[in-house]
Amino acid sequence: MSTSLVSYDTLVATVAGIFSAHLPEGDAQHVARCLVDADTRGVASHGIGRIPVYTKRLRLGLVNPRPSLRVTGGDAATAHVDGDNGMGYVVAQKAMDEAIARASQFGIGMVLASHSNHFGMSASYVQQALDAGLGSFVFTNAPPLMPVWGGSTPFLGTSPFAFGAPGETPLLLDMATSVVAFGKIRRAARLGESIPADWALDAQGRATTDPHAAIDGVVLPMGGPKGSGLGLMMDLLAGVMSGAAFGGQVRNQNADFSAPQDVGHTFIAFKPDLFLSAEAYRERAAALVQRAKACTLANGFDDISMPGEREEAMARRARLEGLAVSEQDMEMLREEEQLASGSAAERSGSHSAA
Amino acid sequence: MSTSLVSYDTLVATVAGIFSAHLPEGDAQHVARCLVDADTRGVASHGIGRIPVYTKRLRLGLVNPRPSLRVTGGDAATAHVDGDNGMGYVVAQKAMDEAIARASQFGIGMVLASHSNHFGMSASYVQQALDAGLGSFVFTNAPPLMPVWGGSTPFLGTSPFAFGAPGETPLLLDMATSVVAFGKIRRAARLGESIPADWALDAQGRATTDPHAAIDGVVLPMGGPKGSGLGLMMDLLAGVMSGAAFGGQVRNQNADFSAPQDVGHTFIAFKPDLFLSAEAYRERAAALVQRAKACTLANGFDDISMPGEREEAMARRARLEGLAVSEQDMEMLREEEQLASGSAAERSGSHSAA
Repeated sequence: MSTSLVSYDTLVATVAGIFSAHLPEGDAQHVARCLVDADTRGVASHGIGRIPVYTKRLRLGLVNPRPSLRVTGGDAATAHVDGDNGMGYVVAQKAMDEAIARASQFGIGMVLASHSNHFGMSASYVQQALDAGLGSFVFTNAPPLMPVWGGSTPFLGTSPFAFGAPGETPLLLDMATSVVAFGKIRRAARLGESIPADWALDAQGRATTDPHAAIDGVVLPMGGPKGSGLGLMMDLLAGVMSGAAFGGQVRNQNADFSAPQDVGHTFIAFKPDLFLSAEAYRERAAALVQRAKACTLANGFDDISMPGEREEAMARRARLEGLAVSEQDMEMLREEEQLASGSAAERSGSHSAA
Repeated sequence: MSTSLVSYDTLVATVAGIFSAHLPEGDAQHVARCLVDADTRGVASHGIGRIPVYTKRLRLGLVNPRPSLRVTGGDAATAHVDGDNGMGYVVAQKAMDEAIARASQFGIGMVLASHSNHFGMSASYVQQALDAGLGSFVFTNAPPLMPVWGGSTPFLGTSPFAFGAPGETPLLLDMATSVVAFGKIRRAARLGESIPADWALDAQGRATTDPHAAIDGVVLPMGGPKGSGLGLMMDLLAGVMSGAAFGGQVRNQNADFSAPQDVGHTFIAFKPDLFLSAEAYRERAAALVQRAKACTLANGFDDISMPGEREEAMARRARLEGLAVSEQDMEMLREEEQLASGSAAERSGSHSAA
């Protein structure tokens, strides 16, 4: 497959250009950065390949390009953000900002968001907290793709459990509660590859290696009741408690174009050095990593890496050397740029002249 | 195997009698209740079978029977509890009390504990928050029994990830981050049963079905890097941040009688109805459960149960009908009662007359 090497800045500018036909410039830049960052981390399922569905929903009026994000305080260390059906990326960034502000004052802060949409890679918001020197938990709910334990029909999202803690080598855990992220199944379908037999059931509840059959069926939770329990936990925290849709009622952005998604999110930020000096925390966090890496290797491993470490190394390389973009994605970007200039013309009232 | 049916209250009184040779009466009652509660929930690995190692450590002076629990405030919504090497059960109860107080005031509260010991079943403290109408996260670190992902030697504890949320059917998730709780391997060894091949590696890093070989080796993390990531997260939150031992240095209470364990714990409590009326939260939490239970069943399932629901049903039955205690455990209780009366005599200065 032929690819083009594109610099990080160029790719972000291209994607931001596409979104700026719809969104305020700052929001377009933020969305573009999150999408390209996912590609730099090797998380292609949350990368620029998602652009067409986002712009489609914007064009259809299913996502509010200029939301009024309403922040209301709960008890002191908590707040609520009504996302006003804005892009999830924009709602989540604002909500994590609020969580960071509360953690800075109270040691820990929790912010829930409702009326939001798909926010991309959770790692983006964990990184936002890391950049502020804070640890965090980031949860979201998502459309039903995975059965609750004991069920055979989609009920839970394959929502990621995400956590971060600062350090010389930060911990940045961002893991699907499914055996695999559903995006990996979609990607296998796009690339015509088969999938392992324990990833998913087909529509009849049978194990399958065909990603197309799996897309019509369900992906399985990791560890059976364990992944299912984490999924229920996140739906309660992000959906039930926030006022967003929950319990299988978040709409699928790829399949349901009848109404907004109404996704809910949860952001908990905390200071890592509450009871230690900043210096002592740094030393102890570094010692945890050093001791882990000093363990005897298991068969088949060359090194021991921390959660997110490999992804950050990939991202650093991609930011320096550029990203390999497939011909298919280059074509998609060209099409999206054309659609964007059409939308921009339409928005400026000159669509009859275009 | 012959068993005796013992009422809940009688068993708690017997166990409390054993511990009251060492601990203040209230603490002895609390420890007894936690241990018997674990047995009622079917979590035998954290039940009365643990009594001998606790009393041994108390007799050896490795656990402080009358700790001065020192609470120091961090930022407003947080606090630290120095456990003064008290029993983990006592330290954890106090720390969760502090987390509940902070959540009541600030919406969310986080309390870290250091210089503690094994605290038994995490569900006990999640239940403590549920009884106060609050949701919670409960984390602990633990002696090294599980490799970090990529390693072959023990580094992480098989610490549980625990979470709770109130409701008509509360969610009470308490899951080991290992494929199985290590106690299940110890129990299989005690009962002479074999274990599945994917539970553990032996001391040479090979898969094994022999629980004795597994006890000399390592139990594997669930989902590979996922369970390993959760384990690192909990060691950072409970160990690094609290000032307790961490990174493979928590002592094993069953194997190391040279010094205190220095376990660390993390308790996060939060109000579930911050941005909804209490009534609306209850309705939505109930709807989540109802919708989950209404899913089409998977092959081989009779019903769909929530995390902790089956355990709570077992516990309710055991509290009504009594617990079946093995002859082996009855014998252990008799021995412990004798040891306790010896200790009590010793403490009252009359051991030469005994």
